[in-house]
Amino acid sequence: MEERNIRLIVAYDGTDLHGYQRQKKHITVQEELEKALSKVCNEDITVYGSSRTDSGVHAKYQVITFFTKGNIPVENLKRALIAFLPLDIVVQKAEEVPIDWRPRWNTFGKKYSYTIHNHELQNPLTRRYHWHVKYPLDIELMQKGARLLEGTHNFTTLAGTNSTPQDPVKTIYMIHIEKNEDKIVISVLGDGFLYHMVRNIAGLLVDIGRGHIDYNKIPELLEKEDRRAIGKTAPPQGLCLEKVYFSEEERDKDIQKYIVMSKIPSS
Amino acid sequence: MEERNIRLIVAYDGTDLHGYQRQKKHITVQEELEKALSKVCNEDITVYGSSRTDSGVHAKYQVITFFTKGNIPVENLKRALIAFLPLDIVVQKAEEVPIDWRPRWNTFGKKYSYTIHNHELQNPLTRRYHWHVKYPLDIELMQKGARLLEGTHNFTTLAGTNSTPQDPVKTIYMIHIEKNEDKIVISVLGDGFLYHMVRNIAGLLVDIGRGHIDYNKIPELLEKEDRRAIGKTAPPQGLCLEKVYFSEEERDKDIQKYIVMSKIPSS
Repeated sequence: MEERNIRLIVAYDGTDLHGYQRQKKHITVQEELEKALSKVCNEDITVYGSSRTDSGVHAKYQVITFFTKGNIPVENLKRALIAFLPLDIVVQKAEEVPIDWRPRWNTFGKKYSYTIHNHELQNPLTRRYHWHVKYPLDIELMQKGARLLEGTHNFTTLAGTNSTPQDPVKTIYMIHIEKNEDKIVISVLGDGFLYHMVRNIAGLLVDIGRGHIDYNKIPELLEKEDRRAIGKTAPPQGLCLEKVYFSEEERDKDIQKYIVMSKIPSS
Repeated sequence: MEERNIRLIVAYDGTDLHGYQRQKKHITVQEELEKALSKVCNEDITVYGSSRTDSGVHAKYQVITFFTKGNIPVENLKRALIAFLPLDIVVQKAEEVPIDWRPRWNTFGKKYSYTIHNHELQNPLTRRYHWHVKYPLDIELMQKGARLLEGTHNFTTLAGTNSTPQDPVKTIYMIHIEKNEDKIVISVLGDGFLYHMVRNIAGLLVDIGRGHIDYNKIPELLEKEDRRAIGKTAPPQGLCLEKVYFSEEERDKDIQKYIVMSKIPSS
């Protein structure tokens, strides 16, 4: 059979997984998918992902592709994979795409969410998915900080320690912060992200919300291009890959939705 | 020091716990609380709980009391217990109550929630807390069934297999069913519950929503007073003890809130 390029949308609970990328000795999303796909397709499969999520990070919408010469109908893949994947990884969608389509080349940005449980006490029912911050946070200060992070900047200050990005200049289209009782969700939509960048944005915004850092300092902190200028990286469990955009229209529609949502409380 | 009666509100993730009640060989909520309290109070502590939740069942508002002659200030208890309890169990509130107050005598009903993920595919991010039902469910039929379960009935048909309740007559004040995208929450508010009763209500309502059982059959099924008249018990992970009421006013206020919510979609 002629080679086909198959695209999967994959959701996972990252708590007990060691991140996306293949590693010796550890269970990773990439490895589990390759093992399961190799069984289902009856050939050695290599997958290409859109995002290398870290250990403990979740995904509702990881995008991967793989080539197969096998003849399994694409509409049967989702169900066939259930038996070969751990319960923490579920393929949500499978479809054939053009042979040259790649998750890292043919996408138009991504959206991550970072969720905080902001209460004096830990919540045992959300601790796998939220960062517990016990200090009161001023959402308005965090929102003002978010405005200054939006746009095109050199984000080296917010990159992971010891990481040396090829291109540290990225565009954040939008940061939306929403509070609902004890739950704060920071949504970050950008064209690309450095290692640890969203977790460092969350950590910085929490320092601003606590009053430890003045939000007006953000341009100065970015200009330093030095990770040591900011505080701790927020922990992985609050982070979730929410969406990967397959067109500019889809992305802009989502941005528009958040702009409308933002206007409601201030009107 | 004179003996005091202390009341705790406790939240827990039941996934990795073997229910509330003490058991040989297994970690239970009761045992973990007694071990931690005995250390903190420096004496042997026995706790009295409002509900014996099963293995895998969660609680946002389990109520327990214990007696202590120790002198730890009640306002320090919550924080002191954090170090001695597993992360899955968190004491939310601690206060002194009259010496004769007991969770099983001095409360005025309870509210449980049962949550269903109703989608063709499992959601890895909610599978610890929701029952995955892949068949489409007709919410209106389920709501009609709920109306027929409300009130005072002999609930033997909905009791656990082989359980012999002392008093199978209970009053359900209200069953509220809400659907939000793929998530269905069944809230059940009653004066008391038989073993497995809420999980059997969830199982029965799902059978009605699938079209397997006609909701009009409910009075007849209850009259049979026979567990074999209905289908499978819903699994534990969807169940959560939401609230225990300390007064009739508190309970009636909550019922009123649901009545107002129910009226919105139908008006």
